[in-house]
Amino acid sequence: MKVNRVQIDDSFWGGRIRRMCESIIPYQYEVLNDQVPGIPQSHAVENFRIAAGLSEGEYQGMLFQDSDVGKWIEAASYSLRIREDRELEEKIDGLVQILKKAQKEDGYLNSYYTSARPGERLTNIAHGHEMYCAGHLAEAAVAYAQATGKTELLDIVEDCISYFMSKIGPEPEKLHIYPGHPELELALYKLYQYTKKEKYLKFMEYLLLERGKQPSFLLEDPGFGEQYHDKWFGLEYHQAHLPILEQREAKGHAVRAMYLYAGLADLAYETKDPAIISVLEDLWKDVTERKMYITGAVGSDEHGEGFGAPYDLPNDRGYGETCASIGLIFWARRMLRLKADSRYGDVMELALYNGALSGMAPDGKTYFYVNPLMVIPSQADSRYDLRHVKTERVPWFGCACCPPNAARLIASLPDYVCDYDCGEKELTVHLYICGKITLDKNIWFEASGDYIGSGKAEYIYRGESVEMTLRMRLPGWSGKTGMKLNGSLFRPDTENGYAIISRKWSDGDKLEVVFDLRPRFIYSNPRAAANAGRAAVKKGPVVYCLEEADNGGDLNAVVVEDFCSAGDAGRQDGQQEQAVYLRGYREKAGSQEGKLYSDQNPEKVEGVFCAVPYHMWGNRGKGEMLVWMRKK
Amino acid sequence: MKVNRVQIDDSFWGGRIRRMCESIIPYQYEVLNDQVPGIPQSHAVENFRIAAGLSEGEYQGMLFQDSDVGKWIEAASYSLRIREDRELEEKIDGLVQILKKAQKEDGYLNSYYTSARPGERLTNIAHGHEMYCAGHLAEAAVAYAQATGKTELLDIVEDCISYFMSKIGPEPEKLHIYPGHPELELALYKLYQYTKKEKYLKFMEYLLLERGKQPSFLLEDPGFGEQYHDKWFGLEYHQAHLPILEQREAKGHAVRAMYLYAGLADLAYETKDPAIISVLEDLWKDVTERKMYITGAVGSDEHGEGFGAPYDLPNDRGYGETCASIGLIFWARRMLRLKADSRYGDVMELALYNGALSGMAPDGKTYFYVNPLMVIPSQADSRYDLRHVKTERVPWFGCACCPPNAARLIASLPDYVCDYDCGEKELTVHLYICGKITLDKNIWFEASGDYIGSGKAEYIYRGESVEMTLRMRLPGWSGKTGMKLNGSLFRPDTENGYAIISRKWSDGDKLEVVFDLRPRFIYSNPRAAANAGRAAVKKGPVVYCLEEADNGGDLNAVVVEDFCSAGDAGRQDGQQEQAVYLRGYREKAGSQEGKLYSDQNPEKVEGVFCAVPYHMWGNRGKGEMLVWMRKK
Repeated sequence: MKVNRVQIDDSFWGGRIRRMCESIIPYQYEVLNDQVPGIPQSHAVENFRIAAGLSEGEYQGMLFQDSDVGKWIEAASYSLRIREDRELEEKIDGLVQILKKAQKEDGYLNSYYTSARPGERLTNIAHGHEMYCAGHLAEAAVAYAQATGKTELLDIVEDCISYFMSKIGPEPEKLHIYPGHPELELALYKLYQYTKKEKYLKFMEYLLLERGKQPSFLLEDPGFGEQYHDKWFGLEYHQAHLPILEQREAKGHAVRAMYLYAGLADLAYETKDPAIISVLEDLWKDVTERKMYITGAVGSDEHGEGFGAPYDLPNDRGYGETCASIGLIFWARRMLRLKADSRYGDVMELALYNGALSGMAPDGKTYFYVNPLMVIPSQADSRYDLRHVKTERVPWFGCACCPPNAARLIASLPDYVCDYDCGEKELTVHLYICGKITLDKNIWFEASGDYIGSGKAEYIYRGESVEMTLRMRLPGWSGKTGMKLNGSLFRPDTENGYAIISRKWSDGDKLEVVFDLRPRFIYSNPRAAANAGRAAVKKGPVVYCLEEADNGGDLNAVVVEDFCSAGDAGRQDGQQEQAVYLRGYREKAGSQEGKLYSDQNPEKVEGVFCAVPYHMWGNRGKGEMLVWMRKK
Repeated sequence: MKVNRVQIDDSFWGGRIRRMCESIIPYQYEVLNDQVPGIPQSHAVENFRIAAGLSEGEYQGMLFQDSDVGKWIEAASYSLRIREDRELEEKIDGLVQILKKAQKEDGYLNSYYTSARPGERLTNIAHGHEMYCAGHLAEAAVAYAQATGKTELLDIVEDCISYFMSKIGPEPEKLHIYPGHPELELALYKLYQYTKKEKYLKFMEYLLLERGKQPSFLLEDPGFGEQYHDKWFGLEYHQAHLPILEQREAKGHAVRAMYLYAGLADLAYETKDPAIISVLEDLWKDVTERKMYITGAVGSDEHGEGFGAPYDLPNDRGYGETCASIGLIFWARRMLRLKADSRYGDVMELALYNGALSGMAPDGKTYFYVNPLMVIPSQADSRYDLRHVKTERVPWFGCACCPPNAARLIASLPDYVCDYDCGEKELTVHLYICGKITLDKNIWFEASGDYIGSGKAEYIYRGESVEMTLRMRLPGWSGKTGMKLNGSLFRPDTENGYAIISRKWSDGDKLEVVFDLRPRFIYSNPRAAANAGRAAVKKGPVVYCLEEADNGGDLNAVVVEDFCSAGDAGRQDGQQEQAVYLRGYREKAGSQEGKLYSDQNPEKVEGVFCAVPYHMWGNRGKGEMLVWMRKK
């Protein structure tokens, strides 16, 4: 078993990762095998069994159901890097055998087109998801090979990719197309990194740079046809409205966009092409400075699951698909590889602790697909334009992209913590997540502390003395971040929001980092109309919200003024450990003689209100939730 | 020509009614005859010509296109009560001849089912609109007979109604159904009042009291079938979910509801049945205290054009169909006949000056179908869930129910001003609209003043001396309403928000009424989340709004504090005659280092802002509009 460079042992993440490996990933396997009653049946494994001739029956589920199996194998593989698990490994091996049998002689592997649409390969590029599914299998194959050294799945996947490469490419006789839903691009880069085979890099580059050339092949694509006149499903939906290097604004389907930009960042990392880097930089600014919720959620329009106009960030009916926040993390991670800049690290951390984490209950068995910032159940349960908003977490989805996506993210969290440049002897820490960071044989850091809880982190160097540079991200949310080396305060140089500590490290050297973890009010750019007159509460990277369970309903009648202590709130019971308390008042409903409109301001009643981490919302029954609170 | 009891000569309404009669109603005739190029073609008259065998071709338009002709004849008839117009009368007569030819031998008259769906009469009660169209023709026939004494259209309509009465009713052999879209009910009452034929009252009573009996016949109705599983088009949509006398909450399609409740109020007026009155009272409270926008708009959900949950009143994507506000006026007018209570008069006035009037530009040639209270064009033009919101008035609609509905309302405005009980010698004034109120031969009041502009009204009695009671509505918006009789202040008795002045009136007696017309901030019940932290501005019955044309964009970055004068605003040019000025500040976009989120409050810039009447919005090019302003 290959082990991660980073072994996480963190008060916040440790338990989550353990539950992920021990119970959620096995649970999702049962779901994918239709062994969990009372929830939407996945049929994902059964589809492969049918394609493999191992089962009778008909394909069921979304046409991209295969990808759930790919994501699950990938997640399970990451789990195997964290802890040995024979049973889990056997499950993967079992799946690999099914995939092998489902694969056609020419390498093609896709259960939907094999059993439900024979003879229709590559006829619906816009929505067919064939390359998308192949991409997820490729990511799975690389992860499994990395974790176990086993390459049987890799062989399957390479044959499958070869099929696509035989049909698609710059050569005149081939199809000049690219996937409707990006994903294969970044998977090809993983394949290239693992196998070192240049052809994957070339194919990835082709798929990326072909994108958006006009006139678009999509206009002739049978799968695209009918929906073309709906502007929400036009070329922008597929990020195919402009040649990729001319795209400077994030448009269309948010998950597609995030995966595409992530792939593009891989290409930029490989080529260092300034034209690509400039596109990425503009897209980054457009997303994070005009189109991202404070939780790191992206995609504000349910229809087309897409980006809205700049500053169009409605709190009640935004989409904020869990997968889109995960995609934003993928993209940010790759931007960090391009350049250690805290702007990227801050957004990665933000989306991780909020928009992505909110998609899954702590026990990992119930989920949100959509992550709004305000929920009023009486409205969400009755309005048509809020029908995508669930007021309670659900055990699974008909379109189940999010749960296994969350699983592979959490299980691969070690990969997000830091980068280590072995040649330059430079360790760059992006996320303050505790555990052991192994740099080389016999040299490592032991990271400890309670970043989210108390705002402290401690890095103790272990091993032989060595000249090395540490780059530590200075989170944008921490006004002042203090650093001590072996007990002495010092002011490190900084670059792009990272502190730089270059020195000879000896066994036992201790770097302490202290963050300003006081809760803060965050205000929105006034152009974001939905947040006008309101503030959000953040403590460190964690966004808070008011919930009805703590504060009663009608949360928009609450006006907060400043922070107070749990003691002020008369809450010494410690029930809400992570809670933040706020002093303010509540406008009394019905105090205007029961009128709907009155020239009298409603009566105010002073009160203390309790805010909880946004990622924890929706676990205590149905009720209102509100991130952007009215601020006095 | 029969003349109205009330002849309007009012600074606010006079010009509007004149334009309506002289130009808008003739313009709409051209539209209905497809003589106006460059707008959605109506085909409404052509449909009747085809059904009559006078034209070749196929039916076009909504299946209830006939009703546009009915509404137009009704509006034109009201115009004829206001001013003689031979040409207009000839147009109506011409239409009547076409209708006569389009009518079948058995009395049936409906151009859609005659030419596009022969043999399918009464097979789609849910959405077929046959009785709805017949109802509009009946209203037209009564109005035309009242205006001209001509009864040819009345004969046609009575034959048509007889057809429906031969098929539908309590007798075992008949269909036990009621219209999907209420309208015939209130039309039958007009028919009964005009013809004194009891059978129309009985049929109206049957249609009303049959409504909502369970199990609903609609579940078996072929027209209802497919959409039944969409809860927005279920039984509630048709107000058919409960027996009518058990309905205590307004649900479903808002226009349907308003027309239904109006018909029910007619029945209550006739029968004085306390069970019906109690239902009406509960529905009135539910609508006006929980589900009505401050403009008198109703229907907050675009899907199903219906009522939302209590207090669910989103400002950007509410529906507020012009026809629904007009329907609310119809209902309120009938509630006032049941009982002179200023609650009804206030709402009637509110919807008239705001939600209904906003549906039509001052020149009457461009319209809004949907009347939101906040428009941000960049969002409205790009979001799917705002696609019903037009950011500019349009010249006509494919579904053109609203323009002729506005026409018949404005042209019949004299009927809304007052009630006169000839026996009791009691004049009840609901609306302060100036002109001449004729009570009897040779006795009348001359009403003058400038209610909306200066808050004064003067009623001079003319004619022989007579004992008479005047009931004058005391508008809820006027904190104190002063009254002078022949120059002397006095405090009249009041009842249900009406001042009562019983005395012997002699020629030249003068009643002066002075209202508190100062602009006010209006606050919402805190349960209406969309208005939290905000105030609306009202001056008298008129709701105001901010428009980009006066204040620049990003209106949600504006915070208003108090009122000021045009002089304070440096606006002595008088360009905005009806404007109200407000002092406050604007949060500067981009003042937080261009960030989307910041722990710094945005910079504030003091300013004076200009609010204009809501009914005038959208006439100066595309731009933002906002009713509920942030209030310091």
